[in-house]
Amino acid sequence: MALIVHKYGGTSMGTTERIRNVAKRVAKWHHAGHQMVVVPSAMSGETNRLLALAKELSPDPNPRELDMIAATGEQVSVGLLAIALESEGLQAVSYAGWQVPIQTDSAHTKARIQRIDDASVREDLAAGKVVIITGFQGVDPDGNITTLGRGGSDTSAVAVAAAMKADECLIFTDVDGVYTTDPRVVPEARRLHAISFEEMLEMASLGSKVLQIRSVEFAGKYRVPLRVLSSFTPWDIPIEEEASSGTLISFEEDEKMEQAVVSGIAFNRDEAKVTVMGVPDKPGIAYQILGAVADANIDVDVIIQNVSHDGKTDFSFTVPRNDYAKTIELLKNKMPALGAREVTGDAKICKVSIVGIGMRSHVGVASRMFRALSEEGINIQMITTSEIKTSVVIDEKYMELAVRALHKAFDLDQPAA
Amino acid sequence: MALIVHKYGGTSMGTTERIRNVAKRVAKWHHAGHQMVVVPSAMSGETNRLLALAKELSPDPNPRELDMIAATGEQVSVGLLAIALESEGLQAVSYAGWQVPIQTDSAHTKARIQRIDDASVREDLAAGKVVIITGFQGVDPDGNITTLGRGGSDTSAVAVAAAMKADECLIFTDVDGVYTTDPRVVPEARRLHAISFEEMLEMASLGSKVLQIRSVEFAGKYRVPLRVLSSFTPWDIPIEEEASSGTLISFEEDEKMEQAVVSGIAFNRDEAKVTVMGVPDKPGIAYQILGAVADANIDVDVIIQNVSHDGKTDFSFTVPRNDYAKTIELLKNKMPALGAREVTGDAKICKVSIVGIGMRSHVGVASRMFRALSEEGINIQMITTSEIKTSVVIDEKYMELAVRALHKAFDLDQPAA
Repeated sequence: MALIVHKYGGTSMGTTERIRNVAKRVAKWHHAGHQMVVVPSAMSGETNRLLALAKELSPDPNPRELDMIAATGEQVSVGLLAIALESEGLQAVSYAGWQVPIQTDSAHTKARIQRIDDASVREDLAAGKVVIITGFQGVDPDGNITTLGRGGSDTSAVAVAAAMKADECLIFTDVDGVYTTDPRVVPEARRLHAISFEEMLEMASLGSKVLQIRSVEFAGKYRVPLRVLSSFTPWDIPIEEEASSGTLISFEEDEKMEQAVVSGIAFNRDEAKVTVMGVPDKPGIAYQILGAVADANIDVDVIIQNVSHDGKTDFSFTVPRNDYAKTIELLKNKMPALGAREVTGDAKICKVSIVGIGMRSHVGVASRMFRALSEEGINIQMITTSEIKTSVVIDEKYMELAVRALHKAFDLDQPAA
Repeated sequence: MALIVHKYGGTSMGTTERIRNVAKRVAKWHHAGHQMVVVPSAMSGETNRLLALAKELSPDPNPRELDMIAATGEQVSVGLLAIALESEGLQAVSYAGWQVPIQTDSAHTKARIQRIDDASVREDLAAGKVVIITGFQGVDPDGNITTLGRGGSDTSAVAVAAAMKADECLIFTDVDGVYTTDPRVVPEARRLHAISFEEMLEMASLGSKVLQIRSVEFAGKYRVPLRVLSSFTPWDIPIEEEASSGTLISFEEDEKMEQAVVSGIAFNRDEAKVTVMGVPDKPGIAYQILGAVADANIDVDVIIQNVSHDGKTDFSFTVPRNDYAKTIELLKNKMPALGAREVTGDAKICKVSIVGIGMRSHVGVASRMFRALSEEGINIQMITTSEIKTSVVIDEKYMELAVRALHKAFDLDQPAA
């Protein structure tokens, strides 16, 4: 008997018919002897519907009230799933985030989980009940409802699994696992049977929107075995088959993983590039530039500063494309204070990355990447590297071409050895 | 400066445009210097939509889970109203029932309020905020969400007003007050400027669905001045005019009230009549009959037992029409145990009542009622009386005729003296 957490996304919970299928699938696992905790998302479309109502009333609604409103979507889901499970003859009990409680900080609409008190949940499990917990939400120290931000239900599921030391956390979603890259761009993309947490972190943050990145961080930190798998298989496929399907995100670096130098190609075209040119190369200049951007609540991704010439340097970074105009305006106003010569940028860029834990112990990986791009005549505008990834910023029109070229260059279209 | 509670029904909260109007109306009261607590219902249709989802999953859904689901409707409303109020430049804060907390018992879907802790609400009011509290719901001693049953938002508003010793509780609704009878049946029906709690209790329980009866009980018990008024007036009508509109439900028996012998005519065709004939007239027989009915969770309204003949008596009562068949079956099965001769009944009846606090001190009121019915050739099947009402059960086809005749017989179509 194992303790298993299942997480179901909004599509899986989209209609009462689908909720019934979720219940049958959970019942199958329960009948196999497992203690089951289920974390469902809101029915698809519901969170958007609720937030749209709020936006009709104010262009800038109070975040505390947004959380109050948005949290109801998951509360409906847990109640409906409990009813569906009881229809299947199981005992089930639903919990809102504050009832568990899932304690968070007070950062409304993007709160972070701080502590989960699982005493009550354990009691219900011991009594043979299936426990259903709202995703996406918690409660702050003052008793306000908080939400974790988009995709937060993944994080809730992993956090619950971590707190309860679950044997595995299964994320049922509308894809059947993690691929070497997006199959819509590269039809030869293959599903990975397993991927390391570090690789998954890089894949998630770079635009493979399979899992919310914070859920992967959580899983890595608390060593929760995590599996991404399809919720579109028939609910009655044999449990042994289901239990080994999808992609396992593991903290064990097994031999298989070591064999692949690069596990996948990630990409993101939601970014824009900004360069502040000719700033004095003196201590504090990076803080002066990025502090102003952070104060405007703009996330910065890639940051590059190269060696200086004549005491002047160029400082480049990328921001979400939506924030591009705002960032440029902000920095143009600050040019005199910064002593900068020019603020320039480009919204039509994309970032393409190769990710692989094998890069740590293999030389020549980056140069193989640059050669593949050069053979396609693609100019590289920026380069950054970390231990297990290398990213380039290129003109967005070359994105698909670059991804396909790299996928082939690293033999990702070949079955794993 | 007064402490005022406003309650808005689902129709008033039905769209964001209407919510904006509610916010403007509340802002008007706030700007006039009052401390404002607002209790809104769910957006119209929302509770039905949510319960329908649950019913799709189970014919008999778990009541705890139903409450979990249904309570979200009001939670969305309070968040939206808070945002709308902030758009009007006010500070506002929303509370779910469990956040106040509004403590109830554990009778899911029909819980009763036990205690309201208003410390936090008072703090927010003192800080100049408008406080918005979910109607219809609370939290039980184990931290489960409970709901108060249909119309429960009226009760929540009055209970909050009682706990906080509010100066007045205004129930904004889709009618502009309490009428002498239903204007759809008697076009000459007049709006009452004031009505006593006792009269309102009888009117509410007899089918004038203006206010939920428990809210009136609460208001009477805690002496909360209650006003029913229209939410369809323009939000910017002068506050003095609004403050004296609608119908005041008062615990002060002023002179004006004393002048009317009968204040209104109530009626109800949702009942059925059941008679157990020829039961032995011995102690415990009423309990044996009604205990069985109560055990089946069937509400009994009118109960009549007349004098016995030859040690046998006939025992009659009314039940909701939906429960008629079930009641008859139940009692037929119990006939041998009861020693009854026959169980009979009629689902096509109605109850018509005259209600008036003046009946206490005026003789001949009942006979005037019976004469009016007799002049119309209407046969009376059952009669019951209380201190301030007289009810008759008649064939349902005469209902409108009876109501019109009584309305005229007691001069209710004439302006109050």
